[in-house]
Amino acid sequence: MLPGVGVFGTGSTARVLVPLLKAEGFEVHALWGRSEEEACCLAKELGIPFHTSRSDDVLLHQDVDLVCIYIPPSMTRQIAVKALGIGKNVVCEKAATAVDSFKMVTAARYYPQLLSIMGNTLRFLPAFVAMRQLLVEGYVGEMQVCDVRVYGPSLLDQSYGWTCEELMGGGGLHTVGSAIIDLLSYLTSARAQRVHGLLRTFVQQNGLIRGIRRVTSDDFCFFQMLMGGAGSSSSGVCCTVTLNFNMPGSFVHEVMIVGSTGRLVARGTELYGQRNGSTGEELLLGDSGWVGPEVKDMPLPHLQGLSSMVKALRQSFQAHEERRLWARGPVAIAPTFEDGLYVQTVVEAVKRSSCSGEWECVEIMSQEPDPNHNLCEALQRNKN
Amino acid sequence: MLPGVGVFGTGSTARVLVPLLKAEGFEVHALWGRSEEEACCLAKELGIPFHTSRSDDVLLHQDVDLVCIYIPPSMTRQIAVKALGIGKNVVCEKAATAVDSFKMVTAARYYPQLLSIMGNTLRFLPAFVAMRQLLVEGYVGEMQVCDVRVYGPSLLDQSYGWTCEELMGGGGLHTVGSAIIDLLSYLTSARAQRVHGLLRTFVQQNGLIRGIRRVTSDDFCFFQMLMGGAGSSSSGVCCTVTLNFNMPGSFVHEVMIVGSTGRLVARGTELYGQRNGSTGEELLLGDSGWVGPEVKDMPLPHLQGLSSMVKALRQSFQAHEERRLWARGPVAIAPTFEDGLYVQTVVEAVKRSSCSGEWECVEIMSQEPDPNHNLCEALQRNKN
Repeated sequence: MLPGVGVFGTGSTARVLVPLLKAEGFEVHALWGRSEEEACCLAKELGIPFHTSRSDDVLLHQDVDLVCIYIPPSMTRQIAVKALGIGKNVVCEKAATAVDSFKMVTAARYYPQLLSIMGNTLRFLPAFVAMRQLLVEGYVGEMQVCDVRVYGPSLLDQSYGWTCEELMGGGGLHTVGSAIIDLLSYLTSARAQRVHGLLRTFVQQNGLIRGIRRVTSDDFCFFQMLMGGAGSSSSGVCCTVTLNFNMPGSFVHEVMIVGSTGRLVARGTELYGQRNGSTGEELLLGDSGWVGPEVKDMPLPHLQGLSSMVKALRQSFQAHEERRLWARGPVAIAPTFEDGLYVQTVVEAVKRSSCSGEWECVEIMSQEPDPNHNLCEALQRNKN
Repeated sequence: MLPGVGVFGTGSTARVLVPLLKAEGFEVHALWGRSEEEACCLAKELGIPFHTSRSDDVLLHQDVDLVCIYIPPSMTRQIAVKALGIGKNVVCEKAATAVDSFKMVTAARYYPQLLSIMGNTLRFLPAFVAMRQLLVEGYVGEMQVCDVRVYGPSLLDQSYGWTCEELMGGGGLHTVGSAIIDLLSYLTSARAQRVHGLLRTFVQQNGLIRGIRRVTSDDFCFFQMLMGGAGSSSSGVCCTVTLNFNMPGSFVHEVMIVGSTGRLVARGTELYGQRNGSTGEELLLGDSGWVGPEVKDMPLPHLQGLSSMVKALRQSFQAHEERRLWARGPVAIAPTFEDGLYVQTVVEAVKRSSCSGEWECVEIMSQEPDPNHNLCEALQRNKN
């Protein structure tokens, strides 16, 4: 039986998500918005019976068993952790910092019976599911290089807000790069060991953001990841990612994996492949013909990925009679909160690298940093 | 009046160059090959009256006024410097090291009346000539990012040779990357100040190179250049270059420049553009339809670039009655030996960066390094 859903957020993703949920048979009972007005407006538009600007009203809502959190990164941790504590299943977007992500991991570990997945949606896109399957089957031989590029128009909101602020989780690296980082670890079954990156903010002011206000989030980002770990190869796979959001009027989303005997390329939602020795590319998975809503701000791969994730959620919950219970199988490929922490750690390492100019190691936090650490050290020193 | 030409080299470039020279009215009087047999064979094939394996025989040939040097990088400096010393005009490919390039610069400075240009041929390709013109005219606004990718099959020769050896000037960075480095300085009117790179040799052995032999030259290279200098912008243009020669059966040659108000992309020999605010790309320069010889090993942009360079050479020499004299105008865009030194310096900085993992400064040699430097220092220390 499908659980009742509460949605946090009134942005473009929330606006798409609700119809997708409804189409799969979920009932959306409650909507949270930062202001009463925003919540009211969108609830009316989408036909959601209850709306609020107080998070507890959704979290404690008796018909809500699944909480979908699509809000600014800096607010995500608080809601996600609280939702788990109240006993709700959680699907949420990335947090703003690794410390926040770590707190979410701790909560998820504490409630293993609850669903807790990251809403990074590229893993569910059929092209990437097929790509991974072909990689496992050895289509490209030994993986050598992943080359990703995403080009598009500005990610900034119409008005000044978190998207403009690097520290609030804005910028191409945090917003789009994190979905790519997650995807590449899914496709290669490996994790970045060392990263190098370069971030730029070419457009610091525009017609809407001016005066004393400046954009600090990146609109161009370029990073490399040397993968290691689970894989067999010692030299590891090199990943290069180019993100450029100074290209209005275009949308390029290309993920290429080159190996010793062939290569696979996902362009948008389509998958192509070429084995060494063949004369041309073959279309392995064509565009399925998107019939859902067209969304101006949301690229088709993300939109279709989101749609596939909602389908997987439906299958997961349908497997059980009790509306809070779910089956692991259909959502097994979804990124966990642990994956979210990994992604956030890579994002921060790339940012560090852009400042230091050096390769930075990706070291996953295993313990929450003690806020009193510096104080303790000072006391220690005084004692001696 | 057109000068008589002597050609050094029997590789694929020399094989294409001779017909191109003849088509423009140049007479090719002499051909040099590393072995008598290679020289004889190609001379017969191309109808060149004289062939030899002794370089002086070409350099001192009385009908030869222009020497074209397309031989392995490690041999280039010696022939080029000697040719200038004998009073011949020189077109040549890159040398193997910055020290060699510096010696060539010194010779070129010593004989300013002689033509001395690098045979990096991409500058002459009509698409890049048009691209530069549009950049100067402000098509893209302020330049932000250059993004270059070249994908293709292995660059290795059929048998073990210099192409396999990094120290001999083999590898994607040295062979193809140097043409891109030169092109980007031409397009942006700026030079790399700092570079970062990563080189890999994924295929160290193959069916033909095995046993104790290993390939040391890179088949994957990825580098970034931060440009500075002549330009006005303080933050500078970021260039990212991806070279991958593990992709048999494909050829991608794409140079994209993104600026504040639009972008230009050269794909192969065609030029496309899109201004911010327009809905799609416009074709700015189509494929002219190549009617010259098809060459298996040589990508079309290089082939057409070579052809355009030969045309420019013809115009340059036609301007004068005396067959040794030439006009600067038609070959003004050609890379000089100084440009060659710059390119070689960047190549070496990228290699250093790949080892150190750090950003490396591009410092152009202004003085030949003293081979006795270490010895002198040791003596100095002993004295104290």
